Amino acid sequence: MADRPSTPILDQVTVPADMKTLSDAQLRQLADDVREETISAVSVTGGHLGAGLGVVELTVALHAVFDAPKDKIIWDVSHQCYPHKILTGRRDRIRTLRMEGGLSGFTKRSESEYDCFGAAHSSTSISAALGFSVARDLGGEGGDAIAVIGDGSMSAGMAYEAMNNAGHLKKRLIVILNDNEMSIAPPVGAMSSYLSQLYAGEPFQELKAAAKGAVSFLPEPFREGAKRAKDMVKHMTVGGTLFEQLGFSYIGPIDGHDMDQLLAVLRTVKDRATGPVLIHAITKKGKGFAPAEAARDKGHATGKFNVVTGEQKKAPSNAPSYTSVFAESLLKHAATDSKICAVTAAMPDGTGLNKFMERYASRCFDVGIAEQHAVTFAAGLAAGGMRPFCALYSTFLQRGYDQVVHDVAIQRLPVRFAIDRAGLVGADGATHAGAFDVAFLANLPGFVVMAAADEAELVRMVATAAAHDDGPIAFRFPRGEGVGVEMPANPEVLEIGKGRMIREGSKVAILSFGTRLQEVEAACEALAAKGITPTVADARFAKPLDRDMILKLAADHDALITVEEGAIGGFGSHVAQLLADEGVFDHGLKYRSMVLPDIFIDQAGPREMYDVAGLNASDIEAKVLEVMGVATIEKRG
Amino acid sequence: MADRPSTPILDQVTVPADMKTLSDAQLRQLADDVREETISAVSVTGGHLGAGLGVVELTVALHAVFDAPKDKIIWDVSHQCYPHKILTGRRDRIRTLRMEGGLSGFTKRSESEYDCFGAAHSSTSISAALGFSVARDLGGEGGDAIAVIGDGSMSAGMAYEAMNNAGHLKKRLIVILNDNEMSIAPPVGAMSSYLSQLYAGEPFQELKAAAKGAVSFLPEPFREGAKRAKDMVKHMTVGGTLFEQLGFSYIGPIDGHDMDQLLAVLRTVKDRATGPVLIHAITKKGKGFAPAEAARDKGHATGKFNVVTGEQKKAPSNAPSYTSVFAESLLKHAATDSKICAVTAAMPDGTGLNKFMERYASRCFDVGIAEQHAVTFAAGLAAGGMRPFCALYSTFLQRGYDQVVHDVAIQRLPVRFAIDRAGLVGADGATHAGAFDVAFLANLPGFVVMAAADEAELVRMVATAAAHDDGPIAFRFPRGEGVGVEMPANPEVLEIGKGRMIREGSKVAILSFGTRLQEVEAACEALAAKGITPTVADARFAKPLDRDMILKLAADHDALITVEEGAIGGFGSHVAQLLADEGVFDHGLKYRSMVLPDIFIDQAGPREMYDVAGLNASDIEAKVLEVMGVATIEKRG
Repeated sequence: MADRPSTPILDQVTVPADMKTLSDAQLRQLADDVREETISAVSVTGGHLGAGLGVVELTVALHAVFDAPKDKIIWDVSHQCYPHKILTGRRDRIRTLRMEGGLSGFTKRSESEYDCFGAAHSSTSISAALGFSVARDLGGEGGDAIAVIGDGSMSAGMAYEAMNNAGHLKKRLIVILNDNEMSIAPPVGAMSSYLSQLYAGEPFQELKAAAKGAVSFLPEPFREGAKRAKDMVKHMTVGGTLFEQLGFSYIGPIDGHDMDQLLAVLRTVKDRATGPVLIHAITKKGKGFAPAEAARDKGHATGKFNVVTGEQKKAPSNAPSYTSVFAESLLKHAATDSKICAVTAAMPDGTGLNKFMERYASRCFDVGIAEQHAVTFAAGLAAGGMRPFCALYSTFLQRGYDQVVHDVAIQRLPVRFAIDRAGLVGADGATHAGAFDVAFLANLPGFVVMAAADEAELVRMVATAAAHDDGPIAFRFPRGEGVGVEMPANPEVLEIGKGRMIREGSKVAILSFGTRLQEVEAACEALAAKGITPTVADARFAKPLDRDMILKLAADHDALITVEEGAIGGFGSHVAQLLADEGVFDHGLKYRSMVLPDIFIDQAGPREMYDVAGLNASDIEAKVLEVMGVATIEKRG
Repeated sequence: MADRPSTPILDQVTVPADMKTLSDAQLRQLADDVREETISAVSVTGGHLGAGLGVVELTVALHAVFDAPKDKIIWDVSHQCYPHKILTGRRDRIRTLRMEGGLSGFTKRSESEYDCFGAAHSSTSISAALGFSVARDLGGEGGDAIAVIGDGSMSAGMAYEAMNNAGHLKKRLIVILNDNEMSIAPPVGAMSSYLSQLYAGEPFQELKAAAKGAVSFLPEPFREGAKRAKDMVKHMTVGGTLFEQLGFSYIGPIDGHDMDQLLAVLRTVKDRATGPVLIHAITKKGKGFAPAEAARDKGHATGKFNVVTGEQKKAPSNAPSYTSVFAESLLKHAATDSKICAVTAAMPDGTGLNKFMERYASRCFDVGIAEQHAVTFAAGLAAGGMRPFCALYSTFLQRGYDQVVHDVAIQRLPVRFAIDRAGLVGADGATHAGAFDVAFLANLPGFVVMAAADEAELVRMVATAAAHDDGPIAFRFPRGEGVGVEMPANPEVLEIGKGRMIREGSKVAILSFGTRLQEVEAACEALAAKGITPTVADARFAKPLDRDMILKLAADHDALITVEEGAIGGFGSHVAQLLADEGVFDHGLKYRSMVLPDIFIDQAGPREMYDVAGLNASDIEAKVLEVMGVATIEKRG
């Protein structure tokens, strides 16, 4: 405890109700305490630091003015929720963030009554808040509904859909636009304070008139600041015409780190709002922690670090990440094929496309948090004769599913889907686990679906996708580092629908799809010591299946076990359908399909998550022993 | 041919190139001919009439000014594409619209080089057009890219995402907002013609200045008209600030039925546009056919009709539609349970919720074409203590898939999904076939997934969903009429995860999920004549499965056949996984899973589509004979 910060006011606050007796001066001090505590906690746990530091004052002000859990505060994406967790009864567990059995790194309904609506994907908060508002007006018990949403999240169509509906319904609803666009250099200063005083004293209409009048004599830096708020707010003038066109009362911009402004505005809104209100707060990501403020990503996500220097403690790595292998491989193809394009939805760093963007700016497209558009835009590129790679995380591809079906699959357009973060992801937990992609893609007619068993296979699959002009193709790969295999200098284009034999054995065949192959191999090592030598094959393709290989494996063995890192409905289901159609089950085959279990798995270390999932080497070994032993007979009936 | 209209100019036009020599006066006559031909054709085929009639002049003008297929004209949703088909080499087949082997009711890449991008779901056109624009600028062969999108389609977030990206990329791109909001009563008149003349003669910036200046002396009706364009355009002023904020040059509004205005504006845009341009055209749905103009839905979708009176020829019906059974049932529950709400995404008529909206306006929400928001809004309602029913077509639910996973399933919120148009849909073809919902829902932890075997079952499932407060629940039902069974007066709440036995037989068990049960029964009648008496069960639930019933069926029979109207990965896959896990296959079971085939099935009559799918009674009968005969043994090896 020696290195814990001194937090005298925070020490008096366990839940928001404890804040009601604090003076405004004490609330300012409380914000400082919360900031220190946040930095201290994340230095121990790692996690999303910058976003939380940007909303410390906003979090304190919201909990001081409103009455959670009766009032519903909804944090969009919820990377920024650590200060909220500290103030809502979870300070004692804040140093377990993102750990197994600890606090989630996101808001989570099952964790606290103060987390009224969980999040992790972006741009859901206004829809949810509108739902709470309507429920309240229909006789529900809730109070105010408040969505806190970042400027980046405003690029998603979903946020627009929600505002469009909210403006129409005219329910009392509060949206706080947390505008932390990094290019906002000049702090919002004296004029903003003045406006904020006005807000506190005058009815809305007068306020807005004052704000509009004021803009003409604002100093230039402030006017620039006022015009910011990436994407939707891009061309906004003070007065917020775009939001007003959508039916919102607009207040702002205000300084999101000035507690006096925040308290004044929130108190006024609480007293007087009748319909939807948007408060535009300018904040600074990483605020108050110099190493974060200085970092390119403003301390967006960090490992454990030294609280004085900001230096991060990183484990040394033996192999490149799958993400970087994909990105480097794509770059090589782009060098010789000018038709190759890359599309990312606001994740140039996460998908590794940042280098592509530097090298081939005219062929790389960051479309914003807009997966629906990303997919159909890629379809348009393909129809126009380009070779687009659409690089998305597995769970975010869910955002563009109808576009995958309707615009890509039905039209057989050659869009290449690079599906990152396929499978379990560790500390980010269930919301980021890529469990469903094989199931929802492999049942689409004409789709080719691959999974890489290691980083060398990934390179071959990029080559295969680049060469595949006859319809859509997808390849999935997991979060994290490869296994350190040698990389092919001239990766070959794989034959579509052909797997590969890994080791010839007897009695039991294991057919792996994806990176669980390493665990299959480890299981075989352990089984060899017991005199058991399974055959092992890498399917490479969930669609089309390697029918010949699978039917031969079934014919030559007593048992066939499929292993994949995905939910039911995917690879194993396609294999089972083939075996059934071919009558293989008619006369008996010990067939087992190892898939992700039917639960959402909470955050933990990767190995622990696989233990929960039952997809580690020991689980595979146990499954082999089960099908070879008597256990299955006992289990029947 | 006696009742074919006289179309002297159209008779000279087979493809758009034939229009290049026509005078403007002849183009006006051509539009009249196309309108007559459209009405005549749809009177024979039925189909989407109103939308096409609204864009006759626009279609002629676009093909006269631009050069398809080099220029890419993309029709959003493409209900309005019949005039386009008539003018692009398909007039000779226009009376086969929506019929088996005939023209698709939508644009379709495989049908014509003039259909550069197919559609049927809404709001994809701007994304696709942007893809074509970028491909062109990267060295592709295409010319201009032109998206024609309705005002309704502008409520979808996807359109916003695309405009947001287009405004950023600044590529030459033409978007035509086809604003046919029915409430636009006053025709756009003299002033509009004047503005249009200006457009034709002056550079854009001067045009817009002129337009802005002009608004102040516009007559009031025109100003009202100018302010229209539902949703996004809701609060727009002349000058189009919202679109301009998103980076578009705005031109309009213009009279979309005035050929002179259209030609002048399109020619100017073709000559001078450098970046993204939005042309706001006011049109009238059903224009030029009095019965359509007079209809509440402006002739949106029609059966075959009399071209003079507009009277539709409808086949008499013996049973209510599944849609109306669902809607009536929900109304009854809403009468006694004030927490029940209904959410639709711009389909109050299609989902049957129009009556709910009349009766309980405060509890019924049409959120626009906005499925992402619809799902999360419903999740917010559920979190706020309401009992929301989210009524969507199966294929449109694909638009909100991530929200189903992230906001509903992970949080175990009791949102009820009423999934209409599940399975094959007839004339609307592949884009509207609800093939994937069971696969993409039943693998979500905690979801309950039901399918109704007939309309009485549907009523029970509505009751079951209304009573289910422990997590999400979905029930699917097909397009079309029920089977005429007696309806339960007091429908019971079904036990979750329990199926029902339909008939006890021997040797072969057929386990049906959904309305194919009628075909299963018909197959059993035919088999009885051959002395074969299968056992039949209705699974009711794909999740959770009725394990006891399924294992008993497997234990008591030589063969088990599952039948469902869905793609692989759904019900049958879950059954196979259960049977594998339980070791049932170890010692032999003739298991077959009858699912939709791995193709997108083109439009046809329902029975013909099921023939293609292999899911009619004769197919089920054949499958039973196969598993009982020697065929499967011959097939092996």
